Amino acid sequence: MTMKHKFLLAFLLGFITNMSLFSDEGMWLFNDPPFALLSQRHNFTLTNPWLENACLSSVRFNNGGSGGFVSADGLIITNHHIGADSLQKLSTPTRDLLRDGFIAKNQADELPCPDLELNVLTGIEDVTEKVKAAVTSEMKPAEAFAARRSAMAAIEKESADRTGLRSDIVTLYQGGLYHLYRYKKYTEVKLVLAPESAIASFGGDVDNFEFPRHSLDFCLFRAYENGKPAKPAKFFKLAKNGPTEGDLVFVTGHPGTTNRLETLAKLIHRRDYFLPFSLARLRTYEAALIQFSASSPANSAIATTDLHRVANARKAFTGQYNGLLNPSIIQAKSLQENNILKAAEQEPEKDSPWKSIADVQKKLALFETDYLLFERGDAFFSELFTIARHIVRMADELPLPSGKRLREYRDSNLDSLKFQLYSPAPIHSSLEQAKLATSLSFMAEKLGGAHPLVKIALADEPPSNRAASLVNGSKLFNPDERRKLVDGGKQAVLASNDPLIVLARAIDAKSRELRQRHEEEVEEPERQAYSDIARIRFKALGKNVAPDATFTLRLAFGIARGYQLDDKEIPFQTTYKSLFDRHNLMQGKLPFDLPERWIKNRDKLNLSTPLNFASTADTIGGNSGSPVLNREGELIGVNFDRNRHGLVRNFVYTDVQARHIAVHTQGILESLRTIYQANDLIRELTSR
Amino acid sequence: MTMKHKFLLAFLLGFITNMSLFSDEGMWLFNDPPFALLSQRHNFTLTNPWLENACLSSVRFNNGGSGGFVSADGLIITNHHIGADSLQKLSTPTRDLLRDGFIAKNQADELPCPDLELNVLTGIEDVTEKVKAAVTSEMKPAEAFAARRSAMAAIEKESADRTGLRSDIVTLYQGGLYHLYRYKKYTEVKLVLAPESAIASFGGDVDNFEFPRHSLDFCLFRAYENGKPAKPAKFFKLAKNGPTEGDLVFVTGHPGTTNRLETLAKLIHRRDYFLPFSLARLRTYEAALIQFSASSPANSAIATTDLHRVANARKAFTGQYNGLLNPSIIQAKSLQENNILKAAEQEPEKDSPWKSIADVQKKLALFETDYLLFERGDAFFSELFTIARHIVRMADELPLPSGKRLREYRDSNLDSLKFQLYSPAPIHSSLEQAKLATSLSFMAEKLGGAHPLVKIALADEPPSNRAASLVNGSKLFNPDERRKLVDGGKQAVLASNDPLIVLARAIDAKSRELRQRHEEEVEEPERQAYSDIARIRFKALGKNVAPDATFTLRLAFGIARGYQLDDKEIPFQTTYKSLFDRHNLMQGKLPFDLPERWIKNRDKLNLSTPLNFASTADTIGGNSGSPVLNREGELIGVNFDRNRHGLVRNFVYTDVQARHIAVHTQGILESLRTIYQANDLIRELTSR
Repeated sequence: MTMKHKFLLAFLLGFITNMSLFSDEGMWLFNDPPFALLSQRHNFTLTNPWLENACLSSVRFNNGGSGGFVSADGLIITNHHIGADSLQKLSTPTRDLLRDGFIAKNQADELPCPDLELNVLTGIEDVTEKVKAAVTSEMKPAEAFAARRSAMAAIEKESADRTGLRSDIVTLYQGGLYHLYRYKKYTEVKLVLAPESAIASFGGDVDNFEFPRHSLDFCLFRAYENGKPAKPAKFFKLAKNGPTEGDLVFVTGHPGTTNRLETLAKLIHRRDYFLPFSLARLRTYEAALIQFSASSPANSAIATTDLHRVANARKAFTGQYNGLLNPSIIQAKSLQENNILKAAEQEPEKDSPWKSIADVQKKLALFETDYLLFERGDAFFSELFTIARHIVRMADELPLPSGKRLREYRDSNLDSLKFQLYSPAPIHSSLEQAKLATSLSFMAEKLGGAHPLVKIALADEPPSNRAASLVNGSKLFNPDERRKLVDGGKQAVLASNDPLIVLARAIDAKSRELRQRHEEEVEEPERQAYSDIARIRFKALGKNVAPDATFTLRLAFGIARGYQLDDKEIPFQTTYKSLFDRHNLMQGKLPFDLPERWIKNRDKLNLSTPLNFASTADTIGGNSGSPVLNREGELIGVNFDRNRHGLVRNFVYTDVQARHIAVHTQGILESLRTIYQANDLIRELTSR
Repeated sequence: MTMKHKFLLAFLLGFITNMSLFSDEGMWLFNDPPFALLSQRHNFTLTNPWLENACLSSVRFNNGGSGGFVSADGLIITNHHIGADSLQKLSTPTRDLLRDGFIAKNQADELPCPDLELNVLTGIEDVTEKVKAAVTSEMKPAEAFAARRSAMAAIEKESADRTGLRSDIVTLYQGGLYHLYRYKKYTEVKLVLAPESAIASFGGDVDNFEFPRHSLDFCLFRAYENGKPAKPAKFFKLAKNGPTEGDLVFVTGHPGTTNRLETLAKLIHRRDYFLPFSLARLRTYEAALIQFSASSPANSAIATTDLHRVANARKAFTGQYNGLLNPSIIQAKSLQENNILKAAEQEPEKDSPWKSIADVQKKLALFETDYLLFERGDAFFSELFTIARHIVRMADELPLPSGKRLREYRDSNLDSLKFQLYSPAPIHSSLEQAKLATSLSFMAEKLGGAHPLVKIALADEPPSNRAASLVNGSKLFNPDERRKLVDGGKQAVLASNDPLIVLARAIDAKSRELRQRHEEEVEEPERQAYSDIARIRFKALGKNVAPDATFTLRLAFGIARGYQLDDKEIPFQTTYKSLFDRHNLMQGKLPFDLPERWIKNRDKLNLSTPLNFASTADTIGGNSGSPVLNREGELIGVNFDRNRHGLVRNFVYTDVQARHIAVHTQGILESLRTIYQANDLIRELTSR
């Protein structure tokens, strides 16, 4: 069999299982869990207490990841790369926590994170009827959009006021269902322990999305309430043993985004517009960040998390793009749509929802580049610009009633927004300049030097000079300055001559226009069409497929299992021994270097301890830091990645070679015991 | 003064000097040298013997650089980064000449380069009238293009047959003049000495295009004839001392391309189409090469020269792009055009040549992406594909009369082409796959997955799989296989099922169509318009400006001089002391590491020896390896770079901060004495 045919076959197998019930596909809702599936496929009886324990022990990291409580005293485990944002913000020129790691000797020694918000899901309410009732069939798209936004803001506000909990409405099935999620919120969070980045992300960008893998990608935080360690309602107990190959495992976390229920036309739009744009953007950012990092060790330290995020996204999008160039995925998608229609005994019609979505893409293609650059902000890769834009917009939005504001400024979201906006975390001028210069250049490259918005954004300077003027002239480094402008309202914003405020003001009218166009011509018609598709699908097939990921809590399951790659059998787990083998093979060169104390204490480690393992459970970005559980609901690992075969999971589930990858709980304990000598933590983690 | 105004001022100063005769601008023709200018500005009497010596001692490296003879026995000096291509081809898995350097103990020990061709200019003949006579005003663009091509091929062939010399017609002033260049050719070239890459390109991509600089960027080759060291007609003697600040210096080399005589409309096209495309392409290639290099030390070794070339071009294009976003450059250009018209007492007319060039750009924008991807080959970043395409085209072209062939297959060029095509230099399968995969992806990103040429090129596989199929299935790694196909002609090519030959065949019709469209709609009308502009210019202003660079021998001159940057005075030269200072400041980390023997022998070096120096002379890419001379015509350095302020020199000359950078001859001698202990070579180099 040629490589080409193997590849096609692998995908078609993936497709077939995707359409059947005999698959471990699914990021399932906690209020609609896969009871039957687990019973049929794995002879496992999922119970409500099991679900409740998993739900209340799971934690969402609002900077884009997952985690879980692991002690009665608020100890939380997540990935090192999810904690990295806080590690970098807590670093100083003389204390590099990312590079050197951190161990709090005791609770007093733990470091308060400047702007880390954690959420724990406490309940879900179906509000579909209430939300849909706000929109009538006579409304024009703009009216419908505004009416729905207003209804959602009202429901959220009522819930937040009544329960005191963070309340967010989540759109499921692209508009088929609306659920209200309520969260307990933690904003007092401290850093407890982090390994050195060399071992946490051993293999760096080279091994990212690869398996076998050797990353000790975990770190520990502690949630506090009123200055005392939080007492979570539930927490995960650590399993005594890890999984054996073939074992059923669960993942409970917050997958960010999938596109599996999107129509073929939408995926083709992604392939031909959105992904090429995004790849070009990420490569542009990445080249600038690499150059910035290389120019000095200090620069390298402050750019680490940005570079990791950008490189990771570039690699993930490359995988997605390759997937969408694979005819078998496109064919599978087309079959899927026919199957729904067949099951619903409908013929494809001229005014079918699929057709409307295809029409929307033609409109979107006309202005998407402008929309992404200005309204999403891809032209301004800068923390200071993001702050400036919020300040400018809050001056206009806050005087309006909550339901009429842009959604991010609704009352129920304001606390979380201000928590970020007034963060005292350091912002580095040199890095801001480099990021802004490269994104301004990218903007001009995409639109041409004569484009009116480009002329406003560059103000007669080449990108690097313009970035220097903007950043050097700004006072927004100082959180007090930001607060003063927000508190001063419209008048203060209009009076400000901070160059970034001036820029955000100058492009705001045009930028809002792009947003409105996107809402009216894209979001609203798509939402209505997907709502129709969901109705057809539910009627014909029921909810046999989980909704696409929405960065909310989901339950996935699968089998701990290796796979075949070319003619090699890849075992399902790695050990400390294979870590050192790879280190030696790569001559210890970056990114395969190891921290001093790891090399020194090598012989003390039990080298047969498992370090990473793989399973077929269905995960995606945002699942980073997700607890991995056994049948008993005990913690056996912390998910941190997929392999590259799993990159197409945005579009189709496949388990032929695709795997998610987790740090093994025993590997973590072994490191705490031997390398970090954190005996108090071991006691806290293993006490039952 | 704000940074912005300083920047504008610097450019306007550059512009003003550009327009006057009191400037060191100019890459002057050896048959029209700047006698008067040198006499007026620098009180220097340029003589014919001086010119003859410089001309016959200068060497063109056909892989894109310059160099010079430095002994009576054919010893040649150039840059390490120009020799790098040969160093890499001469390396094996157990002998890494790039990393470790090379010192031939004696002549018998010198290593023959597989495919290095060197040219020495022996004479120039003005053939403008003969070439222009071939084209009449009634001809359509396609006919005019074909007629000129045929006339040029005939002139070249006649010259080559009569003199036995390589004979190339060079188009000057974008079509204003045609000169016939005759070269003595050397294809027996051996490697004599090369430093380690860590010292030759100390500071790597970080310091590239920066100053102060610390690169020992030289290496030594020897030309042979009939198995014996060549006896060049002339060679450069080494100066006893280097330049003092303020000294007049000369650069004699082969600047590749400048765009200073292009019209404003053409530059705006570059800004809004060509450069954004090129930057996106280079970043795509670079990301892939970085990823490939990081994946193992062996991969890193084989990708070094590709990565350097791509990163270098990306940085150069970034500087050009920033320049064209600077309104003062655009304004200067517009003024320049008005000045020519004013001097010529002409009004801008509707059918002026400037207007025709503007019209051409509108046509070019419609198909340039396809043209660059398929005809220039940007979709196929692969040595094997380049070989495959030559083989496919030679089967069609060689049976035609020389004057009717595509220009690269004309009789007078065939020997050089075959020398490259049948090169036994190794081609690495893994690197070819990585390069091809990334360029195929770039093609699809630019054109969309449904484009007919994309479908042909990908043949229903995602880019990485397609690249693997193409490379793994090809036999073109073997030079005998290539020769067999060329010798077998059309029949052999049609019978071949080599996947790369099949691909080259499949896209050839469409690709030739794009080329023809480019010739008819762009090249020919531009050439006629520029010929008109040249006529107006010569009539009004004479040849007060040198023609744009054409990778042919030119003479530039300038002053050894530092410059001011922000509030710092940058001295005009660096020393071995400042090299070690920078090494320490950067903690010896990549790319600021130094080879073992340099660290060990530090104390033996005279640390005050100059290492690099800067001057205002006018250089551009292609000048790498150019001899730098003093008033006596003696070698004082080897040019290897510009600083970033000089990156806009593609469009305007400026000398406020812009400098070219050279390795100092004394720095080279000190390394030969102390580090490499190459006493025979020192004797050969310094014998007079």
